[in-house]
Amino acid sequence: MLVIRAAQPDDVGTILKLIRALAEYEHEPKAALATEQDLLRDGFGAEPKFRCVIAEWDGAPVGFALYFYNYSTWKGRPGIYLEDLFVWPEYRGKGIGKALLLHLARTAVVENCGRYEWQVLDWNTPAIEFYEGLGAKRMKEWLPMRVEGKALLELARKS
Amino acid sequence: MLVIRAAQPDDVGTILKLIRALAEYEHEPKAALATEQDLLRDGFGAEPKFRCVIAEWDGAPVGFALYFYNYSTWKGRPGIYLEDLFVWPEYRGKGIGKALLLHLARTAVVENCGRYEWQVLDWNTPAIEFYEGLGAKRMKEWLPMRVEGKALLELARKS
Repeated sequence: MLVIRAAQPDDVGTILKLIRALAEYEHEPKAALATEQDLLRDGFGAEPKFRCVIAEWDGAPVGFALYFYNYSTWKGRPGIYLEDLFVWPEYRGKGIGKALLLHLARTAVVENCGRYEWQVLDWNTPAIEFYEGLGAKRMKEWLPMRVEGKALLELARKS
Repeated sequence: MLVIRAAQPDDVGTILKLIRALAEYEHEPKAALATEQDLLRDGFGAEPKFRCVIAEWDGAPVGFALYFYNYSTWKGRPGIYLEDLFVWPEYRGKGIGKALLLHLARTAVVENCGRYEWQVLDWNTPAIEFYEGLGAKRMKEWLPMRVEGKALLELARKS
């Protein structure tokens, strides 16, 4: 039986395993540098930087969805941004990923959020088709840009 | 002379004009539905949903950058997400947009953020080249997905 519940501080070990497994799935296993201490500090303090729900199957944690709030200046309302969604391979095909996705859609509606957004890798055709089947639109015109690491330090020093 | 300063509650009228002008530039003038009340509530309360800096030229507000915090589960650190950047056309060519962009890069470094991100319209070649020249990378593999409006309500009702 599936239960989706809010993550608690003692879930950080579970969450970190899922984050690392997702990074591996995304062909970037070495990119997952976060520690349990990072997640505890940033997700479970007075001003959480992210939120997380855990999917349990027969009482065991088998997946997660980690999100935060973004903001739409067009709608004048916050939105939910789904950063990570992952279910252990041996528990796929039971509708757990879909249940996590729907759970956050309900959260968005209950909290009067204007949008629910995420990103998908462009080679992940099954995921893209799955999301589109659920009513999501590809924002094809929009290109994500990123500065990090050394390039960010250099940018901050420019004048 | 250029000054960049944090937005104050009585800037919401200025901010809204800039948001609407940016929506027009992005070919979506009717999409900007936010009100001054929305911006006041969401940007200047006890738990702000966004932050904003104003660019002043000789004391007059001529541009803005509006941002919020996202979260990198790989880095285990928040990041800065730049939602809106706009300078009135008659004040372009003075380096004001670049100064706003650099200001937030410094904010990201000072606040120990792991990333600085934004999105650009894929037809906006001058902007893309400008950002790349400053060290930003196109996240070409990542496709933004969005559910909003009726589709979001329908998704929340699905089981």
